[in-house]
Amino acid sequence: MSAAKPTIRDVAHVAGGPVTTVPHALTEVETARGKAETRDRVHAAAAELGYSPNKLASGLRRQRSQTLGLLSDQIATTPYAGQIILGAQETAAALGWVLMLYSTGADAQLEQREILALQEHRVDGVLYATMYHHHVELPVELERFPLVLVDCFTTGAAVPAVVPDEFHAGYEATRELLDHGHRRIGFVTNIDDVPATTGRLNGYRKALEHAGIAFDDRLVAADASETLGGYRTALRLLTLGERPTAIFAYNDRMAMGVYRAAYELGIAIPRDLSVVGVDNQQILADGLYPGLTTMALPHYEMGAWGVETLVRLINAQPVARSLEPHRLHCPIVRRQSVAAPGGATRTGSHPLPPKPP
Amino acid sequence: MSAAKPTIRDVAHVAGGPVTTVPHALTEVETARGKAETRDRVHAAAAELGYSPNKLASGLRRQRSQTLGLLSDQIATTPYAGQIILGAQETAAALGWVLMLYSTGADAQLEQREILALQEHRVDGVLYATMYHHHVELPVELERFPLVLVDCFTTGAAVPAVVPDEFHAGYEATRELLDHGHRRIGFVTNIDDVPATTGRLNGYRKALEHAGIAFDDRLVAADASETLGGYRTALRLLTLGERPTAIFAYNDRMAMGVYRAAYELGIAIPRDLSVVGVDNQQILADGLYPGLTTMALPHYEMGAWGVETLVRLINAQPVARSLEPHRLHCPIVRRQSVAAPGGATRTGSHPLPPKPP
Repeated sequence: MSAAKPTIRDVAHVAGGPVTTVPHALTEVETARGKAETRDRVHAAAAELGYSPNKLASGLRRQRSQTLGLLSDQIATTPYAGQIILGAQETAAALGWVLMLYSTGADAQLEQREILALQEHRVDGVLYATMYHHHVELPVELERFPLVLVDCFTTGAAVPAVVPDEFHAGYEATRELLDHGHRRIGFVTNIDDVPATTGRLNGYRKALEHAGIAFDDRLVAADASETLGGYRTALRLLTLGERPTAIFAYNDRMAMGVYRAAYELGIAIPRDLSVVGVDNQQILADGLYPGLTTMALPHYEMGAWGVETLVRLINAQPVARSLEPHRLHCPIVRRQSVAAPGGATRTGSHPLPPKPP
Repeated sequence: MSAAKPTIRDVAHVAGGPVTTVPHALTEVETARGKAETRDRVHAAAAELGYSPNKLASGLRRQRSQTLGLLSDQIATTPYAGQIILGAQETAAALGWVLMLYSTGADAQLEQREILALQEHRVDGVLYATMYHHHVELPVELERFPLVLVDCFTTGAAVPAVVPDEFHAGYEATRELLDHGHRRIGFVTNIDDVPATTGRLNGYRKALEHAGIAFDDRLVAADASETLGGYRTALRLLTLGERPTAIFAYNDRMAMGVYRAAYELGIAIPRDLSVVGVDNQQILADGLYPGLTTMALPHYEMGAWGVETLVRLINAQPVARSLEPHRLHCPIVRRQSVAAPGGATRTGSHPLPPKPP
């Protein structure tokens, strides 16, 4: 065998057929034109020679680069952002596509430059992803591409979009506490006017309503959506005359602050207080003691849904179009922070783990 | 102006020159061949028309796709992994390159498939990144590419590689505690035999030695590198007859366990115990009370260094080649967890923040 790079002629020679069968046999979109037996022979010959078709050349021929662009505001500002990328990347790879990364740094000028780059590289489609669920104004240039929005949505255009189901996250978190017998459930929440704030509050209220419990606004406290905000709001709720036996926290960071407030007040979790968060940030939810029960945000799944839908768009397959974004379920991840009021579980009576020998 | 897509002829027409000047003027690698004035005229015309050169076609001509492949084991297993990607992506964009993502899922078969995809897409070079600092066996197929290793290294081949400077992370963390007057400093560390374990221990020992303090192995305790491991090892050190006044923790998760142990034992941080971690995982380091002083791992910087070096390799510019990986500094990020022994700072005398009004 020659040491030079194998060519299409070498593959045809080894496969024992004309040169023109090789691209047909090696290009999945055209396999219908080659008989299965020829295809297998060509594949075997290509594998034997280490021949790989030039994707640049075939991309040019079909005006396809087989690439998807992921354009996002900042791909790594949140610790779970990587999960959107991972879901998108693994799904793209499984479908035979490759993902190219573009980042705007949440800067309008950079965004324009990156959109130009998307055009230059002739990506076949674009995922536009943001790092938390919010409304976006789309740059008009993006409308030229097959386009799917991930963790954001726009108004007025029927662009496929996928977001977390914030309402059901709030509903099911509250439901989990109701199911354990809690009737007096606090909600420590965010001050920002974003869909997660209103969605989770509405879910909390609806779950109470379905359980026949009147909404009590003294049990809802809002602050910055981080540890200190969770700490301050929890101190307020836990020093009420009749304090809640359970707290639903807007996110895991606020839940971390609830833990600190409870610890300082001598209130044991889950014996004297049950807690549910949102995010399933493993580093927090597993690191806290006891482990935090929390609603997982479907970042991986949103990335995967986005790529699947984008590839359907590119292939002109049917895609449900709606002015409403597609809402993905936020599953509960149970750890040890929920028990019946008064502490019915074994864990509840042992606020600290046994000391090591 | 015509509504049709502008072509190279339109740009030449508006710029008032022959068609052949356009690619020279728009392609940075060939600008030496175009006069500056022509170049500016062509750029202005291209901008006016919204013309973008077809990167696929020019990539084919030069056998360049202007793309870098980032092949990693699992891009999102750690919360800070995204920072390697962000550093690589932003640096690539600044240099006029685009980053394509490939993930092996830490699976040998998937890795082979992804390497084939790298070949098919004719990426110009490959960053091979792992999600924690360790030794790797390189797949031989990767040696065909310009190649740089990020957060890992190999033996026997002079492949440029970049890793965190574990020794100095340990040295400077210990130095920070020594500088505040501590003499009895514990180290809670990892049981895994990885470069971070040995590097940080050696740095800790060297800093003690430079301060004239004898190493005392009773002050070093190893366990799993997570919260529970930090909790168990800290309980051991903090219940010694003569307990340490400061603890250096292998990572922020172990430091979180140190906080819990201290809290349970009624030991206030930083008044009665100073703590330094490693990682600068913001969600933990900011979320803990008091905020955790910690050594930042240079994930963003490693991604940036990797791309810069890779582009130099591709452009046949000089690159320092060595059998030793390039070690990047881990800067200290100071928060409130370090004070003089006995609590010399104001924070030290107020273990809890004032209650909100």
